[in-house]
Amino acid sequence: MTASDISIVGLGSMGYGMAQSLLRAGHRVYGSDINPVTTTKFQTEGGQPNGGEPCDCLIIVVLNAAQTEGVLFGDNGWADKMRKGATVIACATVAPEFAKDMARRCAALGLHYLDAPISGGAAKAAQGKLSIMASGTQAAFDGAAPALDAMAEKVFRLGDAAGAGSAMKAVNQMLAGVHIAAMAEALTFGMTQGVTPDTFLEVISQCAGTSWMLENRAPHIVAGDYSPRSSVDIWPKDLGIVLDIAKSAKFGAPLTAAALQQFLAASGSGLGAQDDAAVAKVYARNAGLSLPGDA
Amino acid sequence: MTASDISIVGLGSMGYGMAQSLLRAGHRVYGSDINPVTTTKFQTEGGQPNGGEPCDCLIIVVLNAAQTEGVLFGDNGWADKMRKGATVIACATVAPEFAKDMARRCAALGLHYLDAPISGGAAKAAQGKLSIMASGTQAAFDGAAPALDAMAEKVFRLGDAAGAGSAMKAVNQMLAGVHIAAMAEALTFGMTQGVTPDTFLEVISQCAGTSWMLENRAPHIVAGDYSPRSSVDIWPKDLGIVLDIAKSAKFGAPLTAAALQQFLAASGSGLGAQDDAAVAKVYARNAGLSLPGDA
Repeated sequence: MTASDISIVGLGSMGYGMAQSLLRAGHRVYGSDINPVTTTKFQTEGGQPNGGEPCDCLIIVVLNAAQTEGVLFGDNGWADKMRKGATVIACATVAPEFAKDMARRCAALGLHYLDAPISGGAAKAAQGKLSIMASGTQAAFDGAAPALDAMAEKVFRLGDAAGAGSAMKAVNQMLAGVHIAAMAEALTFGMTQGVTPDTFLEVISQCAGTSWMLENRAPHIVAGDYSPRSSVDIWPKDLGIVLDIAKSAKFGAPLTAAALQQFLAASGSGLGAQDDAAVAKVYARNAGLSLPGDA
Repeated sequence: MTASDISIVGLGSMGYGMAQSLLRAGHRVYGSDINPVTTTKFQTEGGQPNGGEPCDCLIIVVLNAAQTEGVLFGDNGWADKMRKGATVIACATVAPEFAKDMARRCAALGLHYLDAPISGGAAKAAQGKLSIMASGTQAAFDGAAPALDAMAEKVFRLGDAAGAGSAMKAVNQMLAGVHIAAMAEALTFGMTQGVTPDTFLEVISQCAGTSWMLENRAPHIVAGDYSPRSSVDIWPKDLGIVLDIAKSAKFGAPLTAAALQQFLAASGSGLGAQDDAAVAKVYARNAGLSLPGDA
């Protein structure tokens, strides 16, 4: 494998681990974050300063569409500085129409654009074992290949145009968010009937009521541990994006809307930075229940 | 193993398979159903007429609490006819308080009562591979053992008093119903963004958005096959029971309430006897989408 020059913008919980995986694979990795402390820390681990040097590949791991557009086309944006034929890998959860627009604007500058939302959490990012829901031209996949090989365990190849990756990510986030809230609803409902959280987890994880999210998040509640692997505040953002897309399509999504309200209540009551399993605290408070770890 | 005299009341999609499993295990099985054709059919397969003969064990596999109470304590009810020390296995989805009341009334007649809601569907019932969420006294478990051995792959032993089994079943049904509706919501939402049902199933079943119900029911939609393995009309009933229990506990369950509305819309628009995956048709109709198999 040839080492590539790869820039990565956004060294948050996902981006930092992805950058580490790229370094491990032997690439020259230019990393930057809005937080200069993070940027400096990355350089102590072998990263390069990220001043807009020409690169083969630019990975954007920011919060949303506005930040993605800013990185590419804002003041001092990257799109004008990249080599012709270079590839943009855009990882934020965005609307499919936004991804299509970005791909069109990049193509006009001779750049390839891979619509590539990521899934798996910070731990898998650091291990180079993300799932990536990707769509784009063959040239975009070819240009992204060295980075994808280093970062992903599984690349779902969803079509030859931007938009399809973001569409699948929105579908996945819809279900993931609903399932976390549903787990919290059922776990606390069970407590009102004498089902303890640990018995809930033990039994339901073996029954038809289980979900990936239940098996992943309910243990946090059982342990009373809300250190954020993925925070409550992800969900007002991501379910908001999902419902914006749904509204544009005149699609009614009542379960998703109900789940969003529960995450908003969690965030509004000061739990936004906690692990997203803390949405259970909204239910517990409303029902006068004490969760494990409550004082 | 000694053959027991086991009566079973209710030879519907679950009860019939359970009765067959009991026959296969060598028991004398006395079966009856409100539908005489079913009762007669069971006798051609080796079952005995079920005229209230004294039995070691009575299994009640009916629709709800009212029918369970009727079987035991209604006109010509079984409670008065059973041998002292015999065991009742009550399998309907009921409120925990109802199960406690039945256990108390049975105990007053010298009968043991196992609170034993079942899970797994008709196919597993016929294979003797149900999951049973059971609670009751040691004597109730002992009396039920020959029948449980024949019918169940997994018996969750949830405590020494009736009520705990029904509580866990309610929790499981809450999640199962919400997850079916969520799957339908996400599958059809995806269609508005160009995600086909088969791609949805292929990708999401490997991602954090998956659930047991998604993997079990989404294939029905992909195949356009709504022959009922478990029907839409189960859910207004079971989620209604869940929300009744929740209301008694002053527990707000917004996702469950939203899911119930979707199943009511499915039932109200004539889909009640179809497979419960048909709740997707409500979403599809509201969004102007055509599902696989649509004319």
